[in-house]
This record gives sequence, structure tokens and C-alpha cells, in this order.
Amino acid sequence: MKINPWGSELIKDYEPLFNEFGLQHVTDEMRERFEKNREFRRGIVFAHRGFDDYVKAADEGKRVAVMSGIKPSSEFHLGSKLTAEEIIFMQKEFGATAFYAVADNEALADNGMGYEETAPLAVSNVADLLALGLDPDNAFVYKQSTCLPVLNFAQLAARRTTMATLEALYGHQNLSLYLAVLTQAGDILQPLFKENGFERVVVPVGVDQDPHIRFSRDLAAKLGYPLPAAAFHRFFRALNGETKMSKRDPDSMLSLSDSADDVKRKVSKALTGGRSTVEEQKKLGAEWRKCVVYELMFYHFEDDDKELEKIRTQCETGKIMCGECKLKRIKKIQDYLKKHQEKKKKLMPKAEELLEERACGMEAD
Amino acid sequence: MKINPWGSELIKDYEPLFNEFGLQHVTDEMRERFEKNREFRRGIVFAHRGFDDYVKAADEGKRVAVMSGIKPSSEFHLGSKLTAEEIIFMQKEFGATAFYAVADNEALADNGMGYEETAPLAVSNVADLLALGLDPDNAFVYKQSTCLPVLNFAQLAARRTTMATLEALYGHQNLSLYLAVLTQAGDILQPLFKENGFERVVVPVGVDQDPHIRFSRDLAAKLGYPLPAAAFHRFFRALNGETKMSKRDPDSMLSLSDSADDVKRKVSKALTGGRSTVEEQKKLGAEWRKCVVYELMFYHFEDDDKELEKIRTQCETGKIMCGECKLKRIKKIQDYLKKHQEKKKKLMPKAEELLEERACGMEAD
Repeated sequence: MKINPWGSELIKDYEPLFNEFGLQHVTDEMRERFEKNREFRRGIVFAHRGFDDYVKAADEGKRVAVMSGIKPSSEFHLGSKLTAEEIIFMQKEFGATAFYAVADNEALADNGMGYEETAPLAVSNVADLLALGLDPDNAFVYKQSTCLPVLNFAQLAARRTTMATLEALYGHQNLSLYLAVLTQAGDILQPLFKENGFERVVVPVGVDQDPHIRFSRDLAAKLGYPLPAAAFHRFFRALNGETKMSKRDPDSMLSLSDSADDVKRKVSKALTGGRSTVEEQKKLGAEWRKCVVYELMFYHFEDDDKELEKIRTQCETGKIMCGECKLKRIKKIQDYLKKHQEKKKKLMPKAEELLEERACGMEAD
Repeated sequence: MKINPWGSELIKDYEPLFNEFGLQHVTDEMRERFEKNREFRRGIVFAHRGFDDYVKAADEGKRVAVMSGIKPSSEFHLGSKLTAEEIIFMQKEFGATAFYAVADNEALADNGMGYEETAPLAVSNVADLLALGLDPDNAFVYKQSTCLPVLNFAQLAARRTTMATLEALYGHQNLSLYLAVLTQAGDILQPLFKENGFERVVVPVGVDQDPHIRFSRDLAAKLGYPLPAAAFHRFFRALNGETKMSKRDPDSMLSLSDSADDVKRKVSKALTGGRSTVEEQKKLGAEWRKCVVYELMFYHFEDDDKELEKIRTQCETGKIMCGECKLKRIKKIQDYLKKHQEKKKKLMPKAEELLEERACGMEAD
């Protein structure tokens, strides 16, 4: 089994990850403890590395951080939203200081997008993060390209890394992606740098990013840092149900900047679990497990478990047809995005300010 | 034929470099025009790439820069001194702005020396450079680890570089040295970055560094910059005459921080061209071509051609024996270093100031 952090393959079966790569299951105990968090409660965050140790450290009152980031190659989409919500959750739950890397160097490496092109997207992305609820007073938000400690860490990481390791983790990639990997290890480990002084860090991230986690844990061990923990969420499908939702195909995904019309157009075409005929569906009900629209509600837009159950029941008992159902969900999503976009608009200046500060840790300018 | 910028092999025959790697000869015309410069006059600078174009551009009044650097892994030695003198020459001759990179990231990559270890050496190295005559008002002196544009350039360079290219130029090296190479290309090309706006740059450097020059010229071509020019000096032998003078073996070299006692101890043991017996030497004269002590005068400590000729004549006619000759040269070197060290001492605060400024170009902080 292979995991490619830059690909768009869909993982159909998550179980092999636990055996092959040593992921740990999110336990019932964790799920219960963090049940107010939709991702934990619903098993969207389904696996981790060392999150138990992290929680223990936080409970003991140690200084903890949460770290993740975004590649500013497009507007904030639903995947970035999941990560953001988990960061915000860790901030609230543990008082964790957030490190949020705007990976403009990775956008250059992976997408060939220069800083001029990514700069406005970076501001927009950070404004989304703020609108979702990040506390900017307990956060370092920075661009990779302005963060000396992270850029320099790549050199240190290179000394402790062989080409063979990189090829084993990532397959044969170009030099630029390898360099992006070394830099990203710096992003992940930065909270643990002496000058920053955090004792633990957790990285909430899509499970496709696990190679980065393994790589940075290896490095941490070599450098005598505590191993960074990770909390992994499932990634969900593109609207057509065929690949993972990805920035590479804008029509396959929803972004937080989508207009009401975009939402209508995209969701109307989304894969459902509908039957071939209305008669059949009325008789058998539809297959909600196949339905991407249901998944949108489950992951993102229906926080109330009872409401979600109602949707499911109506679906599987044939009480509602897909067309009607879609119209309702489109409305729900449109309302959510409208509210979000209003909030975000007000936060654009703050986002700009945060990025101008270059606040990538204690040694930042 | 192979050239290894990190090795200590001695090049016995320079001619193949011209055919195999396309170096250009320093012409008689150049030598005459720049005859006030010891390195040009004596053929120590013996080869170049595109220096003719550079001179032409400077003559046409274009904004030109000169770029070189030092790995702060030890005190300034005679090799660093040659480079420094050439930088200072270009400053004076063409009004070239100097970019001087203190390659602390390369010291980390190549020597495993951390920033804390290299920081005081960096200050000392820069003070040497100032004592040799660098005009700090027309210079950017910076550490690699504090220069965002250079560190970020590594990412851009990685996108335009294959592993195959690096292996062809440098052989199989570790990832850390490859990253140092990408970073160094940024050092070399930095004057040509849009924000700095120089139209040409020349790199004075030992000929063993030619792979870096070729690499950065390739990159320049891909990025649409004018190709950086280079002026190459021969490197001279270790005091024992067996390898190239190298920081890796402190007793094989003279550093500008050596005490009078160091000079005496080291030069007394240096290889000469003496014969087996005094009688034989009185009859045949000694072989000055073999003598490292003569080479020290030729390259560094006897600027007056007539005096140098006198030394040679006394040697080859058997008028002076090696012991006596060494004593005289030791005195000359001791005097030079004493004066230099006094000058340098006064310039230490200025060196510290320059490095604190992080002045690595127009976009620097």
C-alpha cells in the first residue's frame, strides 16, 4: 500500500494503514472525552500517532502547541476547513499555541506558483482560518518563505537524511519536492525548537500526509526532540465520488469562497445514492453510504447528530428523493458559506497583519 | 578529470581544464590592463569564464557586482585572502558592489558546525576582509542563514535541477551538500535578482570551485539572467607541498590569525627546493620551482616583482641556503601578519555590525 501526499487517489480501505504503517486507532475513550468535537465524535478523526502522549502532557500542564498549514495554491476548501477546525479545537481544549504555516515554498515546488501569485491567496486563506475561529493571540501564522528558522532547519534535516529514506517514504520525486519535505519537517518541529520551548506538538492533518509525520518523527528522534503527535482525519471524496476532494480539480470540491451559484451548480451534479427509478427508490430507499451529499452534511454542514439521523432515515426509507434532498442541503450549505464569508470579509485586514508580522516563532523578526 | 570543491587534491596540470571544461585563458591583454593587481600580473588568476563580457559591461557603465564568500569553519587562511584581495580589486577597479556570503549553512552541511560555533569565526573572517581593504559602504556582507532571498532561491533552483545534473557535477554526495549547492547558487545569482538590479556579477574563486560556477551559469541561463562571470586563481600547495592548502589540516596552512611563533614553526618545516648537501646546493643552486616558501612570496608576501626576482636569483645561483632564506621570509610574513592583525583588531566591531545588519540585498531587513 502506498500513500502519496501529493496525489488524488482515494483510500478505499483504511484498515491496512494501521498494520502497515503503525497508525494508532482513536479509542472510544478519546471519542467520548472529545465528543463535543464533531470530528472526534463522528470518527472523522479516526487515527493518530502519539496523541495519547500529547493529551497526557497537556493534562500535566506542559506547554503544548498545535501545528498545521496550508499550501496557498487555491482558496480554502473543505479539507483545509477540517484541519483548521481541529487546530481551533486544540487551541480551545488544551490552550495549545497554534503554529500555522502558509507553505508558499511548497506551492512553488509542487505547483510552480510564485510568491506574487500565492500572496493574495495566503491572505484569503488566513482570513478563512480566523473566520472559523482561530484565536490570533495564541498563534504564530507565517509564510515559509519568511521564516528563517524553518528554512535553515532544512539544512540540518538534510544532514540527517538519506536519499534512500526519502525515496522509501515518497517514491521517486523531484528534488524540489524533497526540499519541500525537509522544509515541512521544520514547520512541524519548530514549536519544539529550543527558542520556542514547547514540550509537545500535535499535527492535525489528512491521513494522506502521514509520510510527512513519519519523516518528522524520525528526525525528532535523531535530534532528541519529543516525537510530534498527529491526529488524522479521513479525507472525503470529490463531489463526483471518484477521487479524493482536491484543489487540483476545482469542480470536484467546494471552497469556502464559493458563491451560492457555485454551490448550486456543483452540488446539483454531485454523486448520490439514488436508485434508477423513483418507484424503486420509494420502495427500497436510497443508498446514503454512497451519497456525497450526505457526506458533506456528515463532515461539515450538519453539526446536530439528530438532524443528521433524520436525513439518513428519510433517505433510506424512501421518504425523500435525491432532487428534493439536494435542494435542502444546497440551501444549508449556501447559508453556512454566506455567514462565513461575511465574517471572513471583516477579518481580511487582520489576516494581512498577521502575515506581515512574519511571526514564525520566538526568533522571528 | 574531476574537480571536487570539497576535496584537497592538488591540480598538477591546469591545461586539461581548458579543454575539458571550457575555461577561458586570461589573455595577455587582460594581464596588462590589470597589471597593478598582483594576481593578474603574475598569472595567479589564470583562467576565467565570461570575464571579458563582464569587463565590457563595466566599461559601458553598467551596474556591476562582485560576489564571493567564505565558509566560517576556521580563521581566514591564505586561500580566503586571495579571494578577498580579488573582491577588493574589483570594487576599486570597476566600482563593483561586493556581495560577501558567510556560508554558515555550508559549514553546517560540510563540517557539521552549528551556528553557535561558526558565529564568532564569521565575525573574525569579516574583520579580516575589512582589514584587507574591503569598502563596507559598497558591500553587502551577510550570513546565509539570515538571508531569506538566498534561502528561498534554493527552492526555485531545486525546481530547475535534476539529481542527474548534481551527480554529474559533484559526484555522489549527501543531500546536505546538494542543498548547500542550491543555496550557493542563490548567493552567486543574488546580485542579479530583480530587486537588486545588478546587470553583471563576477565571482573570484579558486579553480576547484568551478563546478559551482558551471551550475549557477546553467541556472542563470534557465532563469533568463546574464551568466555570472568567474575569475579563477590557482590554488597553492600545503606547506608540505603535498596537497592543496586546506583548512582541514591547520598545520598545512597559514592563517591570518597565526602568531609569530606559529609562522616560525610552520614555515620552518615547509617544503623547499633544497639539494641534499650544502656543497651541491652551492654548486647547482636550489630548485625554486619546488619551493613552497618561494610560492608564499610569489602569491602573497612579496608584492615587488624586482625583490621577488632577487630571491629567485639568489636561490638558483646558490647564493643563499634554504635555512637563511627561510629566516628572512619568516620575518617578512611575521611583519605582514602583525600589521594585519593590528588593523583587524580595530575592525572587529565594524565586522560585528555588518553581520548584525543582515544586509543581504535590497530585500533584506
